[in-house]
Amino acid sequence: MSTGFFGDISKIKYEGPDSTNPLAFRFYNPDEVVMGKRMEDHLRFAVAYWHTFAWEGGDPFGGRTFDRPWFDGAMDKAKLKADVAFEFFQLLGVPFYCFHDADVRPEGKNFAENTKNLNEIVDYFAEKQAATGVKLLWGTANLFSNRRFMSGASTNPDPDVFAYSAATIKTCMDATMKLGGANYVLWGGREGYETLLNTDLKRELDQMARMLHMVVEYKHKIGFKGAILVEPKPQEPSKHQYDYDVATVYGFLKTYGLENEVKLNIEQGHAILAGHSFEHELALANALGVFGSIDMNRNDYQSGWDTDQFPNNVPEMALAYYHVLAGGGFSTGGTNFDAKLRRQSLDPEDLLIGHIGGMDCCARGLKAAAKMIEDKALSGPLAARYAGWDKAENKAMLSGGSLESIAERVLANDINPQPKSGKQELLENIVNRYV
Amino acid sequence: MSTGFFGDISKIKYEGPDSTNPLAFRFYNPDEVVMGKRMEDHLRFAVAYWHTFAWEGGDPFGGRTFDRPWFDGAMDKAKLKADVAFEFFQLLGVPFYCFHDADVRPEGKNFAENTKNLNEIVDYFAEKQAATGVKLLWGTANLFSNRRFMSGASTNPDPDVFAYSAATIKTCMDATMKLGGANYVLWGGREGYETLLNTDLKRELDQMARMLHMVVEYKHKIGFKGAILVEPKPQEPSKHQYDYDVATVYGFLKTYGLENEVKLNIEQGHAILAGHSFEHELALANALGVFGSIDMNRNDYQSGWDTDQFPNNVPEMALAYYHVLAGGGFSTGGTNFDAKLRRQSLDPEDLLIGHIGGMDCCARGLKAAAKMIEDKALSGPLAARYAGWDKAENKAMLSGGSLESIAERVLANDINPQPKSGKQELLENIVNRYV
Amino acid sequence: MSTGFFGDISKIKYEGPDSTNPLAFRFYNPDEVVMGKRMEDHLRFAVAYWHTFAWEGGDPFGGRTFDRPWFDGAMDKAKLKADVAFEFFQLLGVPFYCFHDADVRPEGKNFAENTKNLNEIVDYFAEKQAATGVKLLWGTANLFSNRRFMSGASTNPDPDVFAYSAATIKTCMDATMKLGGANYVLWGGREGYETLLNTDLKRELDQMARMLHMVVEYKHKIGFKGAILVEPKPQEPSKHQYDYDVATVYGFLKTYGLENEVKLNIEQGHAILAGHSFEHELALANALGVFGSIDMNRNDYQSGWDTDQFPNNVPEMALAYYHVLAGGGFSTGGTNFDAKLRRQSLDPEDLLIGHIGGMDCCARGLKAAAKMIEDKALSGPLAARYAGWDKAENKAMLSGGSLESIAERVLANDINPQPKSGKQELLENIVNRYV
Amino acid sequence: MSTGFFGDISKIKYEGPDSTNPLAFRFYNPDEVVMGKRMEDHLRFAVAYWHTFAWEGGDPFGGRTFDRPWFDGAMDKAKLKADVAFEFFQLLGVPFYCFHDADVRPEGKNFAENTKNLNEIVDYFAEKQAATGVKLLWGTANLFSNRRFMSGASTNPDPDVFAYSAATIKTCMDATMKLGGANYVLWGGREGYETLLNTDLKRELDQMARMLHMVVEYKHKIGFKGAILVEPKPQEPSKHQYDYDVATVYGFLKTYGLENEVKLNIEQGHAILAGHSFEHELALANALGVFGSIDMNRNDYQSGWDTDQFPNNVPEMALAYYHVLAGGGFSTGGTNFDAKLRRQSLDPEDLLIGHIGGMDCCARGLKAAAKMIEDKALSGPLAARYAGWDKAENKAMLSGGSLESIAERVLANDINPQPKSGKQELLENIVNRYV
Repeated sequence: MSTGFFGDISKIKYEGPDSTNPLAFRFYNPDEVVMGKRMEDHLRFAVAYWHTFAWEGGDPFGGRTFDRPWFDGAMDKAKLKADVAFEFFQLLGVPFYCFHDADVRPEGKNFAENTKNLNEIVDYFAEKQAATGVKLLWGTANLFSNRRFMSGASTNPDPDVFAYSAATIKTCMDATMKLGGANYVLWGGREGYETLLNTDLKRELDQMARMLHMVVEYKHKIGFKGAILVEPKPQEPSKHQYDYDVATVYGFLKTYGLENEVKLNIEQGHAILAGHSFEHELALANALGVFGSIDMNRNDYQSGWDTDQFPNNVPEMALAYYHVLAGGGFSTGGTNFDAKLRRQSLDPEDLLIGHIGGMDCCARGLKAAAKMIEDKALSGPLAARYAGWDKAENKAMLSGGSLESIAERVLANDINPQPKSGKQELLENIVNRYV
Repeated sequence: MSTGFFGDISKIKYEGPDSTNPLAFRFYNPDEVVMGKRMEDHLRFAVAYWHTFAWEGGDPFGGRTFDRPWFDGAMDKAKLKADVAFEFFQLLGVPFYCFHDADVRPEGKNFAENTKNLNEIVDYFAEKQAATGVKLLWGTANLFSNRRFMSGASTNPDPDVFAYSAATIKTCMDATMKLGGANYVLWGGREGYETLLNTDLKRELDQMARMLHMVVEYKHKIGFKGAILVEPKPQEPSKHQYDYDVATVYGFLKTYGLENEVKLNIEQGHAILAGHSFEHELALANALGVFGSIDMNRNDYQSGWDTDQFPNNVPEMALAYYHVLAGGGFSTGGTNFDAKLRRQSLDPEDLLIGHIGGMDCCARGLKAAAKMIEDKALSGPLAARYAGWDKAENKAMLSGGSLESIAERVLANDINPQPKSGKQELLENIVNRYV
Repeated sequence: MSTGFFGDISKIKYEGPDSTNPLAFRFYNPDEVVMGKRMEDHLRFAVAYWHTFAWEGGDPFGGRTFDRPWFDGAMDKAKLKADVAFEFFQLLGVPFYCFHDADVRPEGKNFAENTKNLNEIVDYFAEKQAATGVKLLWGTANLFSNRRFMSGASTNPDPDVFAYSAATIKTCMDATMKLGGANYVLWGGREGYETLLNTDLKRELDQMARMLHMVVEYKHKIGFKGAILVEPKPQEPSKHQYDYDVATVYGFLKTYGLENEVKLNIEQGHAILAGHSFEHELALANALGVFGSIDMNRNDYQSGWDTDQFPNNVPEMALAYYHVLAGGGFSTGGTNFDAKLRRQSLDPEDLLIGHIGGMDCCARGLKAAAKMIEDKALSGPLAARYAGWDKAENKAMLSGGSLESIAERVLANDINPQPKSGKQELLENIVNRYV
Repeated sequence: MSTGFFGDISKIKYEGPDSTNPLAFRFYNPDEVVMGKRMEDHLRFAVAYWHTFAWEGGDPFGGRTFDRPWFDGAMDKAKLKADVAFEFFQLLGVPFYCFHDADVRPEGKNFAENTKNLNEIVDYFAEKQAATGVKLLWGTANLFSNRRFMSGASTNPDPDVFAYSAATIKTCMDATMKLGGANYVLWGGREGYETLLNTDLKRELDQMARMLHMVVEYKHKIGFKGAILVEPKPQEPSKHQYDYDVATVYGFLKTYGLENEVKLNIEQGHAILAGHSFEHELALANALGVFGSIDMNRNDYQSGWDTDQFPNNVPEMALAYYHVLAGGGFSTGGTNFDAKLRRQSLDPEDLLIGHIGGMDCCARGLKAAAKMIEDKALSGPLAARYAGWDKAENKAMLSGGSLESIAERVLANDINPQPKSGKQELLENIVNRYV
């Protein structure tokens, strides 16, 4: 019994690269095996409830453009929204979705009412999951939209907001647990500052760490098996966000002894805003051992804010999946489309078209990345470049030695190293063979 | 016996705010006491040898514009340069200078020759220091200009470059020790990458950490009492530099167990390039306990590269010194002008004028900052903003408790926090009373 | 009969630089004479109706934070808002305000209803203006917030939106005329594109020019004596906005023969977003003869979007007013505060505090600028720098001559020019004498 | 008689998409016909003499990395450089090259010597062109590297520099004429300012216009049939460059009556620095009727300076060539690789590899663009989107009418337009079918 929202559109099928059907996949073929695993199991696609079903099409200079029958409502509308959402997951054939509490339940007048609303909708979701087989990639708490969070959640100067936030996280972790979520995510959109003039950095960092410790403790207490993931972003809405980028979050985790309990959910758009490439953030998370999951989208390089567009540049995406695969691929994580339609894309079918394009690009990126790995296209030259370190006297410098002893060796042997070509253009051309 | 380079300009004097003499200080009055300390002892000004004496006025689209009698030379020119430099320090009345090995000695054909040249010039500097009373704020090794370092120093894929770098650092630490330097600085301009395609992040980070450990070990071995300082910068010349910003460097130190041995030298221009304000980086270094010294300059907000201009915006500088003072002021550190003339500023007197303007602005900033601290202009409202955390039940949340127990309390007491004004505009107006 | 919104705050007074009263002016002294004119007549301050009374404190990640009794309403609320607004203008002592139609009237269901609502509120404003002496600096039409404008107003692919926009502009020009507005402004927030893939640039530029021609024709027809002002901005909300910056708008005006009929309203924040300094845009508008008015605010250099903060950096503002004064000062234009509180600044008094700080900084900037002009602090050195062009043979090159004849002269005289110092640091130090 | 510089590398051949030979083309097949024209005639590739043969591998923090036998020399080295260059053009099979005077001749001590040197090398080039069939796409004068130009060429405060620049341009136009160049280019790298404090904008713009008029007059006098092209760039090395972007240059041309005599040479990297996409600048130049030629390269989106890398992102390049083809393709213009190796790419073969990768990507982009045009993939939906303007009453609004008459029609017909989906994601997916 369909809601009818998507008209007569039926399940999106794989039709192959030559298809010109805008409502078909050209590359995403769930059962196709890549590097010994089904494509679906590699990519683990999830739809973001907020952008896809809760966002209204507003921007700082204009209000709602979308016209959805579930807007402006109470519990009945929330359930209609859920009905359409699960229809959408099935039409698209995605195995997962993600949500914040505020995306799925009506806003209550206090914590008790929010909790009651959340529980009711979680029961409804549980039924829908059972009926459809769609699963929860991760749940999270929205601790940024309501005005009570305007000065932070765990980092608020007002301890009551810290308390309210802790309580809300608990209910969202409970919901995630109940729905069998594979991960629980924390994005601290208001954990930062608008001006240093009224901010005590040290105190706020300590508060944030305390909250994260409680999250980890609660996870163990309730036996949640998924990963706890923190999502970095440098700014927006805050002028400065404490979880700036992968390196910053890792330093924070390390400082507060959380580096073995928490991993990262890395977003393309956030990487760009922080002055990095997506692949940099992924490679660094691998190097530091904290890679968890990705929020796949694309940020307009010319816009200074988080545009959350559907990804569409395959060469860039191939490099992203290269690092995902190089790190062993997803375990609990997956590819969540933290992407929204442009606010001028009004039609219900646009929701499908945006996701189809993104999924196809991910599939192309994944296949190119897998082939590069199988061919050792990049890892071969990389190993050769560092091969000098395999020599005993060079290994020795890393495991012992001193400035003095090395200086003596340099003098004695007149070590006078000549630079060797980095071959960047050759490597770029090699990548272009795969995309 | 003057070199005559600065013509008949005599020692720059303090003439007070009403002076219109371009070759006088209007605010920098070394003996004036601010918060119980002489201004000179607060600010601890240093001149940067590289920008002031070695830079030729080139940019990516044009060559040398400056015409200095010591360019293009061997040891005699290096000594003439030193003569002019120490004259300059005395004209300006700065207590300190800073240098890289490559700024002060002629470039040799190998490590042995470089070391010999460095030692000769260090002896010459030692005499000049004794004669003038000018001291060394810090020394450092230039491991970025010579082509041998093009792919990194400690992070080079070629272990011979690692060895060469280690040997060079040793000689520069020896030089700094001999000249009584108050600190030793490491800036890793080539410790990063131009493309991830040919880079093994993990391996290079390990190499960099190993080098830093050896530096710390050598410091202790030779009994160097100064601080070891790392200087963050996000990029340029590298596309990505590992010591991105304060948070990143701190995470690195923490990861490799170096956080108690190393502090930071923080530069305004580098902060801006990393997407931060200078005061953010200073406040964060204070919060993390790793503040060391500053490179004072200014980056053009419109230019995407490191412009290293003389600072001239007093309101911004007041906030910088506010955080320096709030953290207790400099101990071994100081205010190094990592600033260069615009390449169109050709005249010898321009070198003095640039520094005079910068020093005057620092003095104004310092005085404004000191007054804000004495008046508790910002710290008073700050304490009030977080006062709720002094209550027992709130303190308890930070020292123990759990999501569950807090959630119960939120429910039981229907905690429903209402936001309070952050008063940013008021605080900004208050700052404007002081500048 | 006060609305009581501002409690017992009474008219803001000038108390002089030493005042610590947050609700007093320290520098803005309306009757003080600067360069022969009252400060009030120089600065011509205006309050922006939208930010001050219509903005709710939302951002892309959170909703309304402000709690104003006039929100969510029909005509009675619009009138309450007007009551508070005119109280505010009087408390602050500003001579002017500015508005969009959508700021002041309830949104109707169609053009007819919007027009009726606008006319009713305009009558109400007319009474208030008469009662208070506050005047209208400029009116404008909001052609960007309603979803009908999502793809542009005059540049919409749908001609009906062009028509609707033309009709709306007519009513807003009528309103501005009736209220004695000194200018009429056009800001094309949606006149641009989100993607080139669906955009015909040439066609849209022609449409935009046609609309502007009709605006000019209508101005003359109704005898409106004020200036028509276009406001440049490079992007946001659009990915690209056609009125990118001063140079772009001037080229557009010139292309379509409008350069003698239209001037520019230049905003600090928009200048920054376009990669310029505010003073650049002002100086260029002077050079091209199209300077009209300013939107005074400040953009955070670290944030990539339009932050519309109250200005607070006096050294920067002094340079802005320097160019305003150098161009002869305002005629019909003025200083409109296109600035909004941070969304955490909730208190009614924050509205006053934000404006007081901004007005004081403008006053300081103006006074510094005036003194620089009186002293020829910058204009003197400038004239000297170009003095070589006064020679006959050099003037001749600009009025005639040819590459050949000049080449002959270069050869004959072996002209081999040597560079002269640009003295940037000296000039920066000179500016710092005044701020 | 080869110079041997490229060892035993022989002419680069087209081997098809499956080739893994790094020294072969996979897509660039000169004789393949695309849209009725040979690929070579579409793309009109040119090698940039400066980056490829004159650049030494320096950056702001390090000196020369490349080791070329023709560096540091007089006329014999200049001729060796020319020998290698023409070998390179032939190995690569490019039909064109481009140069500045300073790239090809030794630097003389004055204008006379520079002219003599230039003439000698031009004669040598003429012979080489005749022998190889390689042609000149454009010549230009380097008016930015020598210190005499540090404060501008035509916009210098010193009229002698204006004269020297005019004389130099004359000789470069003569050289271009003699070598049968298809265009003459002007890039004003120093035509701008470092600080407004010492700059008279109006005067400098007038000077720049006067120079351009003389260029046009001289072109006609000597009967040069090629196009005069101005190349926009927003900044670097100047803080502000007058020829900021396409819109700015067009406004300048229009202001000074040059819009029918001058066209634009548009560079990808410069577009990015100005806050635009490459395709935006191309589409705008088409819309304004001033498209001339392109400098093909790529700017790193994360670096704030001009990185001049070889292009490698095919989806982006397809959109660039889409607009080139949509405007009718090149007439006198072509695809000049204003791209340089990374300074770590030391090997002679890297010069070939960089160009091969770029040429292959251009070929892929061109083919994708041609197919999109043939299929009306984008132009079809575009025409449909604006179809409403074909109706008589809508056309009438553009050719006549008034705000009043339109307002009456809106009222009478209750015109209340509803937004239609902009279909951005669909269009992006369609583009991805072609790349």
